[in-house]
Amino acid sequence: MFDFTLPFTIDFDMMSGLSNTAISTKRYLSQMKNMFFDDKAYESMLKKEDVLVYEFYELDAPTQDSDLAFGTSITYPGMVGNEYFMTKGHFHSILDTAEVYYCLSGEGCVLMENMEGVACCMELKKGRAVYVPPGFAHRSINTGNIPLVTFFVFRADAGHDYKTIESKGFRKLLICDDGKPVLIDNPGF
Amino acid sequence: MFDFTLPFTIDFDMMSGLSNTAISTKRYLSQMKNMFFDDKAYESMLKKEDVLVYEFYELDAPTQDSDLAFGTSITYPGMVGNEYFMTKGHFHSILDTAEVYYCLSGEGCVLMENMEGVACCMELKKGRAVYVPPGFAHRSINTGNIPLVTFFVFRADAGHDYKTIESKGFRKLLICDDGKPVLIDNPGF
Repeated sequence: MFDFTLPFTIDFDMMSGLSNTAISTKRYLSQMKNMFFDDKAYESMLKKEDVLVYEFYELDAPTQDSDLAFGTSITYPGMVGNEYFMTKGHFHSILDTAEVYYCLSGEGCVLMENMEGVACCMELKKGRAVYVPPGFAHRSINTGNIPLVTFFVFRADAGHDYKTIESKGFRKLLICDDGKPVLIDNPGF
Repeated sequence: MFDFTLPFTIDFDMMSGLSNTAISTKRYLSQMKNMFFDDKAYESMLKKEDVLVYEFYELDAPTQDSDLAFGTSITYPGMVGNEYFMTKGHFHSILDTAEVYYCLSGEGCVLMENMEGVACCMELKKGRAVYVPPGFAHRSINTGNIPLVTFFVFRADAGHDYKTIESKGFRKLLICDDGKPVLIDNPGF
């Protein structure tokens, strides 16, 4: 759809994160099975409505190290039990590649961890950039009441390894405790 | 200053583009000799005041292909003769590397051209991303009345080749004709 050998532009609304000229990839609650800690809360919520948890743009950049993949990621506000709506999270297939996020709207966190067990959670707010260093899995978490919108860029050949997180989860969970986000050890890790 | 092996955050104001926690590189009019077409206008303007034309952040990412360099670029409003304030512009030293811009504030253009002579000028406005493909020199031009602020990302080992543009210029100039930006052939190329 986009020819990455020639200059092009694409608009992303700074509040909603949405584009009129590209199609987003959508992740509904039904696609997030086993990602949230509270299975009961998940199942009961899913029975009521299969809500949209997050969406993002993949513009199909050529998978080569000279190109850059970019777009917006939009994580909607909501909770499953006392866990905030979040993205699945992933490592890059080429582990040794970084990613940059710039927050355009909303508030939340980027949860990160590497294979050596270094884990951290960085707060996101409008106007803040987060550097995800090479080797770090990353997940966006919306702790606010409006969509958490980030503009992201990574090397176009980096690829996505979702399986590692799907099978083990992150070491840490960000839960809502007395109305505030608190980072705890993941009992299921 | 920033450790790119660990996650970190940095704030860039979305209107001004400025950060409180990093030092920008500043380009004053005196550093832009021979970049504008109208030498007379340049010299007479410089006699009055050595104004700040643009500034940007270099966070000194490790120069390796696994990392990403990022920051904001701020081109101030102004004119030299009938030519808009602009950045010097450059190729990447590793020519075959892309760059992504996302416009946070202001209006203007990204002027691009490759070694084969393909030239184009893409309009920038708040919320618009521009893809600078591998091989394309790029220059930001402010055609508005407020700072043109972009968030940029490129591969950290890409490097900057300023000399090619300094010696030859771009093939095209963006001038103000009857109050509107018009792209013309560069008579000095």
